Amino acid sequence: MFDFTATYTDQYQITMSQVYFHKGLQDETAVFDYFFRDLPFGGGYAIFAGLEDLLQAATNLRFDANDLALLKKEGMDAAFLDYLEDFRFTGTIRAAREGDLIFPNRPVVSVEGSIIEAQLLETLLLNTLNYQSLIATKASRMWLSANGRTLVDFGLRRAPGTGGYAASRAAVIGGFEATSNVRAGRDYHIPISGTMAHSFVQRYDDELEAFRAFAEIRPHDCVLLVDTYDTLESGMPHAIQVGQEMAARGEQLKGIRLDSGDLAWLAKQSRAMLDEAGLEEVKIAVSNQLDEHVIKSLLDQEAPIDLFGVGTSLVTGRPDAALDGVYKLAFANNEPRLKLSENIEKVNLPGRKQVFRLVYPDGSFYGGEVVGLTDEPAIDVMYHPTEPEKVLDLERFELQPLLHPVMVEGERTTEPQPVQELAAFSQAQLRHLPDEFKRFENPHLYKIGLSQALLEERDRLMRAHRGG
Amino acid sequence: MFDFTATYTDQYQITMSQVYFHKGLQDETAVFDYFFRDLPFGGGYAIFAGLEDLLQAATNLRFDANDLALLKKEGMDAAFLDYLEDFRFTGTIRAAREGDLIFPNRPVVSVEGSIIEAQLLETLLLNTLNYQSLIATKASRMWLSANGRTLVDFGLRRAPGTGGYAASRAAVIGGFEATSNVRAGRDYHIPISGTMAHSFVQRYDDELEAFRAFAEIRPHDCVLLVDTYDTLESGMPHAIQVGQEMAARGEQLKGIRLDSGDLAWLAKQSRAMLDEAGLEEVKIAVSNQLDEHVIKSLLDQEAPIDLFGVGTSLVTGRPDAALDGVYKLAFANNEPRLKLSENIEKVNLPGRKQVFRLVYPDGSFYGGEVVGLTDEPAIDVMYHPTEPEKVLDLERFELQPLLHPVMVEGERTTEPQPVQELAAFSQAQLRHLPDEFKRFENPHLYKIGLSQALLEERDRLMRAHRGG
Repeated sequence: MFDFTATYTDQYQITMSQVYFHKGLQDETAVFDYFFRDLPFGGGYAIFAGLEDLLQAATNLRFDANDLALLKKEGMDAAFLDYLEDFRFTGTIRAAREGDLIFPNRPVVSVEGSIIEAQLLETLLLNTLNYQSLIATKASRMWLSANGRTLVDFGLRRAPGTGGYAASRAAVIGGFEATSNVRAGRDYHIPISGTMAHSFVQRYDDELEAFRAFAEIRPHDCVLLVDTYDTLESGMPHAIQVGQEMAARGEQLKGIRLDSGDLAWLAKQSRAMLDEAGLEEVKIAVSNQLDEHVIKSLLDQEAPIDLFGVGTSLVTGRPDAALDGVYKLAFANNEPRLKLSENIEKVNLPGRKQVFRLVYPDGSFYGGEVVGLTDEPAIDVMYHPTEPEKVLDLERFELQPLLHPVMVEGERTTEPQPVQELAAFSQAQLRHLPDEFKRFENPHLYKIGLSQALLEERDRLMRAHRGG
Repeated sequence: MFDFTATYTDQYQITMSQVYFHKGLQDETAVFDYFFRDLPFGGGYAIFAGLEDLLQAATNLRFDANDLALLKKEGMDAAFLDYLEDFRFTGTIRAAREGDLIFPNRPVVSVEGSIIEAQLLETLLLNTLNYQSLIATKASRMWLSANGRTLVDFGLRRAPGTGGYAASRAAVIGGFEATSNVRAGRDYHIPISGTMAHSFVQRYDDELEAFRAFAEIRPHDCVLLVDTYDTLESGMPHAIQVGQEMAARGEQLKGIRLDSGDLAWLAKQSRAMLDEAGLEEVKIAVSNQLDEHVIKSLLDQEAPIDLFGVGTSLVTGRPDAALDGVYKLAFANNEPRLKLSENIEKVNLPGRKQVFRLVYPDGSFYGGEVVGLTDEPAIDVMYHPTEPEKVLDLERFELQPLLHPVMVEGERTTEPQPVQELAAFSQAQLRHLPDEFKRFENPHLYKIGLSQALLEERDRLMRAHRGG
C-alpha cells in the first residue's frame, strides 16, 4: 500500500495553513462538508466507499523528515515548520456508512477540527472518497445487471496505476465477489481469481496439450480459455476432451472462458456442447469490454453465463472517470460560512448539519432526505431547497440519521469492518430503494429537502453577503 | 510510494507459472512485446511514459512473507513456493525512450527472460505503462494547445486514488511545468505550485481582509483567487487594491486566478483592469474543467491567460480513461509464437523484433516506422502489413532504432533521468513530427511497415497454424 504522508495534498492547503498559523488561527474551529453534485453514469444513486482507507491514512498522517526538508527548501519558515512537525489530525469526523447509498448536494462526510487540520485533510479525503465511491457505484450497477451471477474484477492491467489497488476493494463493496489482483486480495481479504491467459495456450504447439498440462497441475481450479484459435471448432472440443478426461480421473473441469467474439451466441453454443458431452457442471465465464449495459444485454438474450470478468470499465469508472465530490467550508470564524453562486443550487449549506433519510414503517425508502442543523429539535416538515413554497410533511416517515461519528478528536470510534460485510450492507440498502431509482434510463430523482432552521440560516447568510 | 511486491499482479500469472514450473519449463526463454492498438483521444501520436517506475519496481520485485503466506493458503505447493521465494526478475528489457512518440501495433517494450519471470512481470508492466503513457499523451496535447503558456497539474483531488501520484510525473513528461501534488513534487523532483482556495476567502467576513492576510504572510508567492463572490465587482477590485498596497511596500502581486464563469471574457476584463491600475506584471491563471480543446479555444479567442491549472481531464485521461496496451507472447518453446485472429490486423508480430523510425536527412520524421527482426541485415524496403503488394523503398531515410536495452539480465543499464530531461526530449521529438500528425481532428495516419523477413515469418506461421 501507499505510505501516505501529510504532503499527499495540494500545495495550497499548506500555504493557506501557513497564513492561518501566522494569523494565530491555528486553534480556530472549522467544519467542512464533503458532498458531490452529480450522480455518476446518469444513475439514480451512488455507493459510498473509501472511508476505511481514509481513516487509516488520517490516523497516521504526519509530515516526515523528507516532507519537512522539502517544505523548508520551498521557503516555509521555521516556526511554521515546527508546527508541522508536530502535526496530527485531532479532529472529529462524522460520515455515512461505507456501502450506503449516497445522493447529491447533501453532506456525506463532515469534518470538524482546527482550521489547519481540517484543511490539510482535504485533498487526501477527496482523492480517496471520490475514486472509491465512483468505482463502488460502477460495480453496484453491474451487480444489479448481473442478477445473481458472479462478478470478478480483472482490471489491474488497465487500472490507473496504483489506483487499481483500492479499486479492487471498492468493487467488492459494490457487489463483486473476487479480484484477479493478488495483492489487493491479500491486503483487503478479498477472494482472488484467475486461471490462464492466451499466452499460455500460445506457448504450446497444440491447444489440447496446453489444456492437458493445466488440468494436470491445477485440477481443482481449471478454467480453460477457449478462444485462442477457434472457439467452437478448436477450443471447445479440446476443453470438452480435457473435461471428460478429468471426469474419468474423478476430477471436475471448473469452467471455460470466452474472451472474444459474440459472447451471447458463443455462450449458448458452448453450453449446448458441454451439456451434450455430459459436462453440465462446467461453468461459463466471459470477459472482454463488459460493463453494466453489456451484462444486461447478454442476460436479456438469455446467454447462459455464470461469471463475468470485468476490467477497464470497472477500474476507470468509464465513461465518467471521476466523481465530482467537493469539500466546502460550512463553519469558521465562530460562524456558519457560505459560498455564494449565481446559481442558488450551488450555494453551499452552512453550519453543522445532519442528514436524515425518510423511511417508511416497512423499512423501504421513500426516495428523499432532509438536511437539518445538528442542534435542531425534531424536524416535522422539509422545504424544497430552491422553491421553498414546496413543503413536505414528514409525519409518516422514520427519520434515519446518516452521519455517524467515526473519529472523535483524532481517535477512531469504530472498528474496521470486513469488506464483505460492507457489501452485504450495501446490497441490503439497495433492496430498500424503490426500483425507479435503480433503472439505468432516466431514473427517478431522489429528493433533498431542508429543515426550517437550515433554510432560514442559509437565507439569512445570503442576505447578509448580498448586503440585504 | 507504493511498496510493490510480486503479488501486484493478476492471479493467472501465478497459476500459469505454477504449471510451467511443474512442467520443467521455468528456464525456457520467452519474449513478450508490449504494444497498444489504438491511439487515445483520436490523436495522431502518443507519448511513452512510466518506464522509470517500471524499472524500479522490477529491480526490487520479490514475493515477501505475506505474499508467500497468502499463496500457501491458496493451495500453492511447497516446491513452487520455494521457487517463488527465490524469485527475482533476471530478464532483459528493451524499450522505447521515455518521452518518445509511440504508435499503435508495433513493440514499445520487449521483455526477454524465463517464461515465468516474463509472465510475472506482465501486469505490473501494463498497469504502469498504460496509465502513465495515457496521461503523458493527454498532457502533451495540452502542451500543444497551450503554445508556450504554463501548465500546472491540479488533479490530485479527482485522481484515481494513489494513481494520481504517478500522474503528476507523467504530466511533466508531457509538458506540464509543475504540480499541486506536494508529495509527487517531493519524490519526483517536480516544481510544486498552489496558493489559495475559496475556503480561505470564505473564512473571512471580508474578501479584502482575506487577500491582505495572504499577501502579508506570503508576499513572494501571492496569487489571489478572485471569484468567490463576484469576480469583476469584488474580487478584482480587492486584488488590485492589495496589488497596489504590495507595490507600495516594494512587493509584487504574482497573479490572480479565475475558477468559474466565462474564462475568456473574464481574463480580458481582468487584464484590462490590472493594466489600467499599473499592474501589468500581474499574471492571470485560470482553472475549471480545462482540457486541450478548451485551452485551444481560450487562446483562439486571444484570452490573455498566462497559466492553466488542469485537474480531472488530465489525471483521468478523460474521455478515454485507459490506453489499451497489451503484452503478447512473441517467442517461446524455441520458436516465434503467433496468436491468430479473424482480423489480420490483430495477428501479432512473431519473434524478436526491432522498430526503426524513418527519418529524413534534415532530422524530421517521415511519418512511419518499419518493424524487422533483430537478427535481420539492413532493411531496404518495407511492406504494408495487410496489403503486402504496397511496398515503400527506404533508401532516402535514416532508420533510427527505437528499442534500447534498459535492463540486461535483471540489471539496469541506464541511469534514471530527471523528468524535466524526459520532457525536453519529448518536446524535441514532437518538433520533428509533421503538423498533420499533431492536429486534433482526423490526424494523418502514422505508417507501419514490415521488413521482408518479418513478413515472411508471420505468413509462414499463419499457414502452419491454419494447417496450410
